[in-house]
Amino acid sequence: MLDHLNLFSSSHRGSQLRAPRKDAAKALTFLLIFILTATVAHAADPLPSWNDGPAKQSIITFVEKVTKPGSPDFVPVPERIATFDNDGTLWCEKPLPVQLFFVIDRVKELAPQHHEWKTTEPFASLLKGDMKSAMAGGELALMELITATHTGNTTEEFEQIVKNWIATAKHPKTGKLYTDMVYQPMLEVLTYLRANGFKTFVVSGGGIEFMRPWMEKAYGIPPEQVIGSTVKLKYELRDGKPVLVRLPELNFSDDKDGKVISINRHIGRRPIASFGNSDGDLQMLQYTGAGSGARFCLYVHHDDAPREYSYDRTDSLARLDKGLDEAAAKGWTVVSMKNDWKTEFPSERK
Amino acid sequence: MLDHLNLFSSSHRGSQLRAPRKDAAKALTFLLIFILTATVAHAADPLPSWNDGPAKQSIITFVEKVTKPGSPDFVPVPERIATFDNDGTLWCEKPLPVQLFFVIDRVKELAPQHHEWKTTEPFASLLKGDMKSAMAGGELALMELITATHTGNTTEEFEQIVKNWIATAKHPKTGKLYTDMVYQPMLEVLTYLRANGFKTFVVSGGGIEFMRPWMEKAYGIPPEQVIGSTVKLKYELRDGKPVLVRLPELNFSDDKDGKVISINRHIGRRPIASFGNSDGDLQMLQYTGAGSGARFCLYVHHDDAPREYSYDRTDSLARLDKGLDEAAAKGWTVVSMKNDWKTEFPSERK
Repeated sequence: MLDHLNLFSSSHRGSQLRAPRKDAAKALTFLLIFILTATVAHAADPLPSWNDGPAKQSIITFVEKVTKPGSPDFVPVPERIATFDNDGTLWCEKPLPVQLFFVIDRVKELAPQHHEWKTTEPFASLLKGDMKSAMAGGELALMELITATHTGNTTEEFEQIVKNWIATAKHPKTGKLYTDMVYQPMLEVLTYLRANGFKTFVVSGGGIEFMRPWMEKAYGIPPEQVIGSTVKLKYELRDGKPVLVRLPELNFSDDKDGKVISINRHIGRRPIASFGNSDGDLQMLQYTGAGSGARFCLYVHHDDAPREYSYDRTDSLARLDKGLDEAAAKGWTVVSMKNDWKTEFPSERK
Repeated sequence: MLDHLNLFSSSHRGSQLRAPRKDAAKALTFLLIFILTATVAHAADPLPSWNDGPAKQSIITFVEKVTKPGSPDFVPVPERIATFDNDGTLWCEKPLPVQLFFVIDRVKELAPQHHEWKTTEPFASLLKGDMKSAMAGGELALMELITATHTGNTTEEFEQIVKNWIATAKHPKTGKLYTDMVYQPMLEVLTYLRANGFKTFVVSGGGIEFMRPWMEKAYGIPPEQVIGSTVKLKYELRDGKPVLVRLPELNFSDDKDGKVISINRHIGRRPIASFGNSDGDLQMLQYTGAGSGARFCLYVHHDDAPREYSYDRTDSLARLDKGLDEAAAKGWTVVSMKNDWKTEFPSERK
């Protein structure tokens, strides 16, 4: 493959020199190719799905200053922790959070074993397709649905259920797999941060065991860096084999204040960068922003009804109200999906 | 950008060739040194503080088979998870677990602000140096001591308290810093596993925030890979700055069954190797050993009174009884500290 380099030895005489000199030439070529590739990679746009503008620039400026040795803002690699909300920040959460579609499909699947659901709320309404009535019972109704669809099995059984569902379930509007409804620009941010020594974590209100089975493939985030809401677990020996049984009781709600608490419990270090899209992420961003040294907080603002959805201050499930005010007051980056993102989903990439 | 590569062309003669050839020679030298170093590193004994024997060999055999591409036991890097108990597995836990010495010192330090402790148990006995009477109240007394010494402050305040203490407190028998009472052979296992693509986690009954401030330096394990017992936390804004306050209530006891549950919560993957020293680690080892594919379970057996301590089936705080039986039945590695370890603490290294 590098034969033309043999010519390098042309000025030398004496055959015994040729072999080592050939090796030397090859070694040099490898080094040059390596340096060249590294240089080109560095020069290439790390965020190609972002339009040029202050949002994109703010990300790059932050990463460059915390990674530049000798910079007053330099942060050692082990402290480069970045946390990401999931629903609405890394993937689409409309018309309903994806995990709710999972609940709906699970209720339908389990209904034949639960004839009583035909006449019991919230199941009856849900089975008739009337989500509004099903959710009229508020959080209590939601917990009932989650308990019925998420617990009673072992962690391994539940993992398989999620894997089967996520491989086939489709978004009601686009007909795409939910894992194809992840935001391409945010995937680029994840990759860019990791290429610069960051550890990327998901910190989501979603169920931790609903997310882990697919996030490694979708986001490059391994299970140990996925943090979410949890149910109580029980250790049991079944036929001499240890299993963990998922109990019908909430253990921890990983939302709002909970996100800061779970960051402390799981990570034990304050993130230097956090990304969210709703008031449920506000405490995480506050906590991140309040640390000493360079800090980066970003809100994804859903203002792009033509390409995705548009919602903020008055949304019932993913309100972004206080967060918008605090972002303005503190100079956090607010991403306009409409203006800052060239493409939204991976399939749109040219 | 590639102009200088023209110099490789055979049509060039004379002086302009010399510089690149020197570079080529240098590049080759670097490569050779690199290859040589890598080869020597590979050939060197990864566990020099271990005596040759079945325990040492079992570790090496396991690591080699799970890391050898094409081997039927090969495990991809992301799944190479290893979990370690701390007290008695990575550092000395006698005459008392180190965190109890921290409790004692904290009670003494805080006593001037708590005159009532002079006449209230378990504080009164502890202040008189009578640990046996202080602990007569069992778990309740212990929780009272932990609450009084570990909570009421913010996570950052507590971190600083631990850092100050661990930097100066000395082991009552050896006069060494506790962080010098870590087991050299186990440090080598940690390093050896990490050099082979493993992620190493601590899974300890100790307080998570008591361990994190010093484990990165002592073991090379970052906070996000330290799992332990936790207290409840409360998010508060103080002078507009978010803090987490440590509440006087246990959140999670990371012992026995708890270790398996916390492994699921924090890591989300079953370890392929686990290391412990007591029945409190049994469930973790059972869970690890019950996975499919190659698995490795190891008990450190404290049978070396002359150099450290000797205890097992009848110890009140760190009993190793069921574990010894199960290890024998399942063929787990049982390390005789007396026979398998050349040296025990880093300071003994020649």
